[in-house]
Amino acid sequence: MEYPTLIVLLALLQYVWFTMRTGMGRVKYKVDAPACTGDEAWERLFRVQQNTLEQLIVFVPACYAFAWFLSPLWASVLGAVFIIGRFFYAAEYIKYPKTRSLGMGLTLLPSVVLILGALFGIVRGLI
Amino acid sequence: MEYPTLIVLLALLQYVWFTMRTGMGRVKYKVDAPACTGDEAWERLFRVQQNTLEQLIVFVPACYAFAWFLSPLWASVLGAVFIIGRFFYAAEYIKYPKTRSLGMGLTLLPSVVLILGALFGIVRGLI
Amino acid sequence: MEYPTLIVLLALLQYVWFTMRTGMGRVKYKVDAPACTGDEAWERLFRVQQNTLEQLIVFVPACYAFAWFLSPLWASVLGAVFIIGRFFYAAEYIKYPKTRSLGMGLTLLPSVVLILGALFGIVRGLI
Repeated sequence: MEYPTLIVLLALLQYVWFTMRTGMGRVKYKVDAPACTGDEAWERLFRVQQNTLEQLIVFVPACYAFAWFLSPLWASVLGAVFIIGRFFYAAEYIKYPKTRSLGMGLTLLPSVVLILGALFGIVRGLI
Repeated sequence: MEYPTLIVLLALLQYVWFTMRTGMGRVKYKVDAPACTGDEAWERLFRVQQNTLEQLIVFVPACYAFAWFLSPLWASVLGAVFIIGRFFYAAEYIKYPKTRSLGMGLTLLPSVVLILGALFGIVRGLI
Repeated sequence: MEYPTLIVLLALLQYVWFTMRTGMGRVKYKVDAPACTGDEAWERLFRVQQNTLEQLIVFVPACYAFAWFLSPLWASVLGAVFIIGRFFYAAEYIKYPKTRSLGMGLTLLPSVVLILGALFGIVRGLI
């Protein structure tokens, strides 16, 4: 499970970067805790982080389940697509939220394929 | 770990459904990103998704720990209760948030039992 | 993996406590679902829970990866620091959000060390 874990850890590092940028943005855009609204530039940073969190809760267990029950190689490839998709998503969202669809698709699609592939791998083994 | 993983993957699929419904709701209820407030009908969809995320962070690792250190069968049964409870929670919350207690209990209780059972299984093995 | 799992489960219990306190706070501070703003005392409880969720998504997989590829003992020690840091963070944030830096550092730092240590352990094994 070396390669899938490597990919998962890189996705976590990317998320830590989004988190730190959001934290530092509180100072820059003057959004004092506990507020989560204010300057829209900060709200975009915040939503990029939150949305990545919303995706990671699926990605991490699905990536491991796919790697274990179907293919560690393809789990890693799909995971790499997930990370690249997140970079697109973040870059587009911060510029102009309406253009986030491609990046969103490139992270949601790998996650759904990871879930369905892992389900297929388990069911194939049980029957 | 086939059956606990099957249950975890189904819980993730349910959450992906809640997530997609929230995303599509942004168009229907005219809540443009990055805003997370507006039409209360959308806020309910959003909170169902967010609350499921808040629960999954506990459920996924606790389900695996319980399966590993105590019983994969009972981990799967408790996980099935979790998923059914989430459907109740979502249906009630969207109709009328004040009635969400039963669905909430049916997801929080299995998670707490999974944590405590896993702790019991580990401590029993260590002493 | 008994000790790392023990630590992960204790961190989840701590988070369940933060979650229940936020839920009970909705009654005390009269913040009716689905609203997530209102009395600032409640917003502080809510942000403590949310921020812990934002941290757990990194901590749980990074703790296991570090334990598996480098050292279960040090994964447990860093995990204990994470839990203690979260208690500081919660206590300070609820009193006065601006003083949360120490507690924040004591949870973010272990998570980053867990990620980097796990990456080191994997890369060392591959080359």
